Parts: sequence; structure tokens; C-alpha cells
Amino acid sequence: MANIIAASTSTVFGSGHLEYLHEELKPFFKEADEIIFIPFARPSGISYDDYTEKVSQSFSKIGKRVKGLHTFENPKQALMNAEGIFTGGGNTFVLLDQLYKLNLINDLKQSILNGTPYLGTSAGSNICGLTIGTSNDMPIVYPPSFKAMGLFSFNINPHYLDPISGNTHMGETRETRISEFHKFNPQPVIGLREGSWIEVDGEDINLRGNLQARLFKQGQRAVEIESNSDLSSIK
Amino acid sequence: MANIIAASTSTVFGSGHLEYLHEELKPFFKEADEIIFIPFARPSGISYDDYTEKVSQSFSKIGKRVKGLHTFENPKQALMNAEGIFTGGGNTFVLLDQLYKLNLINDLKQSILNGTPYLGTSAGSNICGLTIGTSNDMPIVYPPSFKAMGLFSFNINPHYLDPISGNTHMGETRETRISEFHKFNPQPVIGLREGSWIEVDGEDINLRGNLQARLFKQGQRAVEIESNSDLSSIK
Repeated sequence: MANIIAASTSTVFGSGHLEYLHEELKPFFKEADEIIFIPFARPSGISYDDYTEKVSQSFSKIGKRVKGLHTFENPKQALMNAEGIFTGGGNTFVLLDQLYKLNLINDLKQSILNGTPYLGTSAGSNICGLTIGTSNDMPIVYPPSFKAMGLFSFNINPHYLDPISGNTHMGETRETRISEFHKFNPQPVIGLREGSWIEVDGEDINLRGNLQARLFKQGQRAVEIESNSDLSSIK
Repeated sequence: MANIIAASTSTVFGSGHLEYLHEELKPFFKEADEIIFIPFARPSGISYDDYTEKVSQSFSKIGKRVKGLHTFENPKQALMNAEGIFTGGGNTFVLLDQLYKLNLINDLKQSILNGTPYLGTSAGSNICGLTIGTSNDMPIVYPPSFKAMGLFSFNINPHYLDPISGNTHMGETRETRISEFHKFNPQPVIGLREGSWIEVDGEDINLRGNLQARLFKQGQRAVEIESNSDLSSIK
């Protein structure tokens, strides 16, 4: 019964925060007046209050109020009673660590499985996968586990980047990194380019946005998947 | 009494493996006929044997034999008796995890502190810092800790990359990532560009190579440091 939008990024180049998703978010959050915002990923180390204020301004454009999860006396109850939930991007390790520290990861998952519409961007999408093992982020804190919510039977690699031709930098390409991941982990990985998202509507899981995504499976060549493809059989 | 070369990368663009370091490595390893190679970081998931063979070819050009640490019945003793040690790049999480699993991290550190010349490149340099919290790698395995050898009073960010002007990708720049690191961690970080290395000779710690490095300190603006600068007071 889940309703999820797991997006590669909050912001595409040349557009405001969440702006490219506004038309999607109106019907997605139609039953919600207030969105509970999880600010734990703290991009650039922004404070929870400042991050919530930023997101609040963005959601006001589609007529929604926003309340930071950190302001609730009982955050477990807040998640369970939420009309809609948004987890913003930032650092995936910091986000997951805080969810574990506050013992909220199962409540968040349960609320989503109960049908609460959930929007994640970047780090907030990463935690929908089986693990955060395909995050691009710097490991600036040590979470008690890399296990994430497992709402999908695969991992997500947000901000997926194609190799840049003519690049002289010797660091690994994203594709090489994901191929290394598959030496140690069996689950498929979906490389979501900026502007793409995964939409879950009940049992249906589809790729949305105008772009292709890149699907990596252990022991197989990576393939491109078209927008609007059915992802429900990927495991 | 340590002798360390901790390099940003094994390979600079347009040159063979370790080639740009050959003239440094001859005097550095002058007492060593055989180098013990730690292949655990497995770039692109290469096997220990294949990685050791590659490194062996590279060291043969300066007249050294190479033996993989994985081939010793008693790897602790091998580290303690080594004439020289090289840890190659790949995935830092995989490298550190394996060092912990085999309970070798303290032996490696002790051997280095006893004066065994140690060369690290990329992941092999990362583990010389206080933690691997400024690695660029994908967290494809979960090590029991991010704590590294602490041979320096700072962290290293290898393959340091300056922001690319005109880039439309919305992922964080390296500088932003390191600034997020400093929201949670106090130690300085040295961003080592490809072609730079840190040389430890007894009590002396210096930046080597032709390039500047970038020094990040908590709560301060990042600064450029010149080649041949003394790094021993950075903590």
C-alpha cells in the first residue's frame, strides 16, 4: 500500500528547490495539509531549523505547511500520524545515523508501509533501498549499520553520473564504483540521473521523469532503462 | 622513526603505474629487496593475485621483488619482518575491513613505527590518517570502525578535486563534503591532488610533488599550502 516518490535530487540545474516536482507533488500529497519534514541529512551542515524553513518555503508554493520532525516531543507518534513525509538530501551517513540513534527507522518504514505518502530526495531516497552501500557521500559519521529501510529490493545510486569523456582525473567512475559494489553485494542498483525518480503506487513501481536510468545487476552488463519502465520485478 | 610516502594516487594521467614516483622510491626502499604488498583494497574487484602481479611488474622496474601479504601463513610476522611495505589503492572500506578482520591494523602500524618504509597510494594513504571519514569511496562493505592507523594527526583526502567551473551537476563539491566533515569531526584534512604525496622522514613531515595541496581546518577557511611545506605542526 506504499506511496513513494524517491527522487535522484531535490533540485535540477537552473530551477528552484523541488520545482521540477511540483506538478507531481500536488496530487501525491493531495490529502495532506501538513508535511512532516526529516531534516537529519543536513546538507552543508545546515541546522534542522534552517533546513526546515527552506523546505517550508518550497512547499508553500503548493499550499502545504511543513513541520520539522525534530520539533515533536514524540517523533515516533508524529511519523505514525503524519499526512505526508519528506526526507531531504544531504549526507546519507548522518541521516541514517540519526534515524538509528533516535530509534526511528522502523517507525518511518512502518508509516510508509501503512500508506503515508513519502517523498525522498537524494539521501532521503537512498534510505529507501536495501542499504546505503551505494551512497556517493563522504562517510563523515559512523552509523551503527548501513542497512536501510528496504522498501525496494534494490539499492539506489542518486545523482547518477555518466563517465565524462576526456577526463584526466584518475578517481573511479560511478560505474566502476557500482561494479566494485557488486563484488561484495548481490542486490541490483538503479543509477538515477538528476531529474529522474522512482514512483511507488501500491504494488506498482515505475521509473518517472524524462530521462533513462541505468540498471546494474551483479555479474551482468549495465543496461539503460526507459522512462516509465516497470521496476517491480527488479530484485 | 617512521618512513612514509602517502601519495594521492598510484598513477597520474598519461603515465604508468607508480611511474611518477620511481625516482623517489629508489632511495626510499634502498634497503629493501622485497616489498610486502597489501592488495586488500581490490580496485575494480581485482583478485589479490592479479593485483599483486600488476604491482610486481611495476616494482620490477626499480629492481624490487614483491610478495602479496595474502600469501603468507603468518601475515603478522610478515609485516613485522618486512623490509618495505606498499598498500595499493582501491576501495578504502574494503581495505580497512579486511585489515580489521585479519586483526592486522595494529601490526601494520607498529611495523611502520619501527621504521619499515611504507608506501601508500590512495586508499593506502587514507588509512594513515586518523579515520577514513574523508574517503571518496563508495561504502560497499561495513567495516567494524572508521578508525584508521592515526600515523598523522589529520585526515587525508586523496584524489583531491577542485570544483569544476560551469558544472551543472547538483552533487556536492569535494570542498563542501569536507566542510560537512568538519561539522562532526575536529581533525584537519589535507586535500592531496593527484601527483602530490606526504613524506614522513623520522620527525619531519613534508608535502612533496609539484602541486599545492589544500588544507581544511574546522571553523576556518581552506588554504593552499605550497609544495615542500612542513606539515608536522598540523593537528
